Amino acid sequence: MDFTVETATEAVVDSFRSTEDPRLREVLMSLTRHLHAFVRDVGPTPGEWEAAIDFLTAVGQKCDDTRQEFVLLSDVLGVSMLVETLNGVEEGTESTVLGPFHMTESPRRDLGDSIDLLGTGRPCVVSGRVLATDGTPLPGAELDVWQCDEEGLYDVQQPDVQPPGNGRGLFRTDDEGRFWFRTVVPSPYPIPTDGPVGTLLRVTGRHPFRPAHVHFIARAEGHRPVTTHTFVADGPYLDSDAVFAVKQGLITDFAESRDERAAERFGVTAPFTHAGFDIVLAPEVTVNCRE
Amino acid sequence: MDFTVETATEAVVDSFRSTEDPRLREVLMSLTRHLHAFVRDVGPTPGEWEAAIDFLTAVGQKCDDTRQEFVLLSDVLGVSMLVETLNGVEEGTESTVLGPFHMTESPRRDLGDSIDLLGTGRPCVVSGRVLATDGTPLPGAELDVWQCDEEGLYDVQQPDVQPPGNGRGLFRTDDEGRFWFRTVVPSPYPIPTDGPVGTLLRVTGRHPFRPAHVHFIARAEGHRPVTTHTFVADGPYLDSDAVFAVKQGLITDFAESRDERAAERFGVTAPFTHAGFDIVLAPEVTVNCRE
Repeated sequence: MDFTVETATEAVVDSFRSTEDPRLREVLMSLTRHLHAFVRDVGPTPGEWEAAIDFLTAVGQKCDDTRQEFVLLSDVLGVSMLVETLNGVEEGTESTVLGPFHMTESPRRDLGDSIDLLGTGRPCVVSGRVLATDGTPLPGAELDVWQCDEEGLYDVQQPDVQPPGNGRGLFRTDDEGRFWFRTVVPSPYPIPTDGPVGTLLRVTGRHPFRPAHVHFIARAEGHRPVTTHTFVADGPYLDSDAVFAVKQGLITDFAESRDERAAERFGVTAPFTHAGFDIVLAPEVTVNCRE
Repeated sequence: MDFTVETATEAVVDSFRSTEDPRLREVLMSLTRHLHAFVRDVGPTPGEWEAAIDFLTAVGQKCDDTRQEFVLLSDVLGVSMLVETLNGVEEGTESTVLGPFHMTESPRRDLGDSIDLLGTGRPCVVSGRVLATDGTPLPGAELDVWQCDEEGLYDVQQPDVQPPGNGRGLFRTDDEGRFWFRTVVPSPYPIPTDGPVGTLLRVTGRHPFRPAHVHFIARAEGHRPVTTHTFVADGPYLDSDAVFAVKQGLITDFAESRDERAAERFGVTAPFTHAGFDIVLAPEVTVNCRE
């Protein structure tokens, strides 16, 4: 039977019937139905189809060890955030996108260390606790932190700047579940615009900026890990993040503190800029296995 | 307002509201709605999302001057054929996919020339006419032809084989709209399977073969060009083409002919293998412009 606009989708769906993995089969059949619905909806000309092929090819070819343009594309189309939201837990600190810059291992650092290796930008202290949902502190929880510098650039975007690992740190909470480290207040920054995703933003009149934030992944035994940000309150782009990742509950004041005892504990002198917040982890889902 | 599963799609759709080009705006808004519907439908885990990013990246990185893996992906998902079908005309020879091998210019040849530069395979003559829908022959019509060799390989897949341009020719019909050239009977062949699309076919239990065919693009002044194939009748895979491109009306007998006069005209000796068919072009769509 000929492939017609009417029979096309079911012919392709049917071609996946022998897929051994049932989940892969389900995903590919769903992909086929939605992709064909999109194509039927817009009815691309051959030239438009070619432009789409060229765009996707350029996105793939822009990727290398330190650049993930398909993650950027997923980000600006809201897909990353949608996947994150669909996988979110109902309790604890809300998650948000991983972003394209978590591609190198963060250096292990001691509590109180500075992740600012350049010494430029407004110094600040970030501190808080990792807690269970019932408020129990979680000692030995792991906190992977990464952020941009004062110029809005991550270390992987400036491979020539030494030492490596600026703006990154892997911390472990103390016996009372506490963490604290020194850094600089992060800046708003544009996502990389020198690739096809940048072109997409330009031709659609969208700005490429993200509001200032610090990235975290927090993990603790017996708990579900969370990938999230802390956003700097009152900055620009909080209501128009290029990657749709802002959640109101993740916005934190980076405020001036005159607390002399806190300053002493953090190894700084008052007054100092301080962002304080706790990270709450939901319990791990456990499955009961009977014999 | 936070990005939720409920508000996600409209937030992203709305981000494209300032796109200047109305067609691009329409396509991106539709893409967003269909892509989000797919993501909500399957609810990918973060690991599955990463696997999708890795797959698309590998597809892009497999592309080079002689390989277009995104076209292959579009082909095996039936998207190329769907686009072709949506753009098809109601009259004249049916169209089918361009395929990924029309990437070099075909050498101009004279009617009667052979496009088989290797001399292996079963020789045959292809002949016919290019006609308007009312049966009028179209002199000076251009016929771009490309096909694989006896091994199922196109010239661009074996850059070391000399001379270049094997299996390709650009012909012009004579005063009576006729074309004829010599070649070998094409073979069924697998689409390239050494890339991510090949992996996709393997894990889904799909074979990579296409039934034997010769590609054409026919053009004539005042008419709509057609991109199509002639399929060799009675061969394998006619009912399971890996790229869904078979149309019953495009299947042609490559049969033995004992016609001595025809043999003389084609510069061969009888008996010879002969595929004869006409290509019918629909009139160009004209737009009346009033002052």
